[in-house]
Amino acid sequence: MKIGVIGSGALGLYYGSLLQRAGHEVAFLLRRDFTAIRRQGLFVTSPRGDFHLPRVQGFRESREMGPVDLVLIGLKAYANSRLIELVRPLVTPRTRIINLQNGLGGEELLATAFAPSQIIGGTAFLCCNRGEPGTVHHLDQGAVRLAAFDRNNPEGFQELAEMFIAAGIPCEICSDLTRMRWEKLVWNIPFNGLCALTGLPTDQLLETPALRREIVAMMHEVIAAANGQSLREPIAAASFIDRMITATAGMGAYQPSMMIDRLNGRPLELEAIYGIPLERAAAQGVAMVRVGLLHALLSATESGAAARQAPIS
Amino acid sequence: MKIGVIGSGALGLYYGSLLQRAGHEVAFLLRRDFTAIRRQGLFVTSPRGDFHLPRVQGFRESREMGPVDLVLIGLKAYANSRLIELVRPLVTPRTRIINLQNGLGGEELLATAFAPSQIIGGTAFLCCNRGEPGTVHHLDQGAVRLAAFDRNNPEGFQELAEMFIAAGIPCEICSDLTRMRWEKLVWNIPFNGLCALTGLPTDQLLETPALRREIVAMMHEVIAAANGQSLREPIAAASFIDRMITATAGMGAYQPSMMIDRLNGRPLELEAIYGIPLERAAAQGVAMVRVGLLHALLSATESGAAARQAPIS
Repeated sequence: MKIGVIGSGALGLYYGSLLQRAGHEVAFLLRRDFTAIRRQGLFVTSPRGDFHLPRVQGFRESREMGPVDLVLIGLKAYANSRLIELVRPLVTPRTRIINLQNGLGGEELLATAFAPSQIIGGTAFLCCNRGEPGTVHHLDQGAVRLAAFDRNNPEGFQELAEMFIAAGIPCEICSDLTRMRWEKLVWNIPFNGLCALTGLPTDQLLETPALRREIVAMMHEVIAAANGQSLREPIAAASFIDRMITATAGMGAYQPSMMIDRLNGRPLELEAIYGIPLERAAAQGVAMVRVGLLHALLSATESGAAARQAPIS
Repeated sequence: MKIGVIGSGALGLYYGSLLQRAGHEVAFLLRRDFTAIRRQGLFVTSPRGDFHLPRVQGFRESREMGPVDLVLIGLKAYANSRLIELVRPLVTPRTRIINLQNGLGGEELLATAFAPSQIIGGTAFLCCNRGEPGTVHHLDQGAVRLAAFDRNNPEGFQELAEMFIAAGIPCEICSDLTRMRWEKLVWNIPFNGLCALTGLPTDQLLETPALRREIVAMMHEVIAAANGQSLREPIAAASFIDRMITATAGMGAYQPSMMIDRLNGRPLELEAIYGIPLERAAAQGVAMVRVGLLHALLSATESGAAARQAPIS
């Protein structure tokens, strides 16, 4: 299968590398890592075994990549004003598009340009960072969940899930995209923002009892908002939160992507992870008070951060 | 009148200097500024006119200061475990004690060692920072409000208010210490913590519309908690908040004391400004949700900050 990766940060590079290693033809849209990968290929370190792909198809422009069978989107959501123009050259009527971005709004944006039946939402539970240019560090986890954007056409990509699994990527298909996205937000909303704001990794947040209680309270807010979004089946708050906290405690001193974005002076994915969820919660009459304060704090420090340092790759 | 200043930060130095200039005998308990003030006196810059006190009574230990008629307490509340031992050598049965600390708990602590009738609560609306050792910069405002700790003995310090006024310190007497302290918290709780947390001065917080709304919402939480504390007369939220926001906007790029404490690696006055108010609100069944999150964030970053840098003067 020919696969195009749009947005080759840690996530795009990692999943793309596993798919290439499994025998697929993978083309990466690159920016920061272009020169290094052209010169020496892509190095992946992982507790499941390091590997090296000596020859990698890297491109600076997506129009050079040609049409593909599958687009994997790992682009940061703050760059979504360019999403359609970056994806369009790769897409034929037979192309599937898996959107692995954080937060809400990505599939709806894709649906302004492509057929709903082509669009698949994906959430990744992946601890992964980029190292030196040309190197990606897989730290932990890595499972992907997929769900159809088109509620009228919920099946028909079982072979994509099997392809992921065959490449070493645990994958399951969910029947409810909305629920799948909000379940991910239950983790992203507290941890991405609180780590970015405080500069502290996840374990240090959980070590402060008062903040741990606030994280749990924030998860309850998100689940209440989720359960107002006409899910097929509501999220059971207590057990879901227990699982999230336990899994996070097991991740050690993890730095979520938004924290790394801030440490590197990049913009934050505030609209996708906070702005749109807050709007959709409010539209159903659910207030997320703590989430609103966190969003406001991130917004205020974002303009300050932007003033101090211009965004880089 | 003989006056002893315990806690000679910006506030203690500024008010003490005005009282000395007005002819009173003022003794300062000094730490950071001891050597500079002994050598060259105290320099005060102010929009109301700079002045210099060439001879200032500075001490390293309060037991060298001897008994006084009036103690002014400007000690940071995070140092309150030493408050009683620092104040005791200055106090006779005729001594009055004005506690100018931020937050709650100071008068109750003093009452464990001194007669309630000796204790006067004070709140200062003062924009003032220390500069080089031996220099204090008065930036704006400076009014003091006083209220008796002893509800059975609410009068009898009119002459102290007149002394402040004669020294150039606007001063009024309030009939309700609890209300006076909570009114100050309506400002301190949002601005001290949010500026310390974000590293942004007051004007930048107010410039972000979402955060300005959160500040107003937090002020409503504090006023709801205040109005649950058996005040003689409740605080009228809308007009009070309007006044606070307008006054703050007029202060420009102000850095509250807690922000300066954090920038200098000092501990924060978290118990007095957040911990005790949250407890007293909860005891009356009032939840301050945003305040609780802010407190937790400050606590989590406090342990981080403490680990990075030991407290200095």
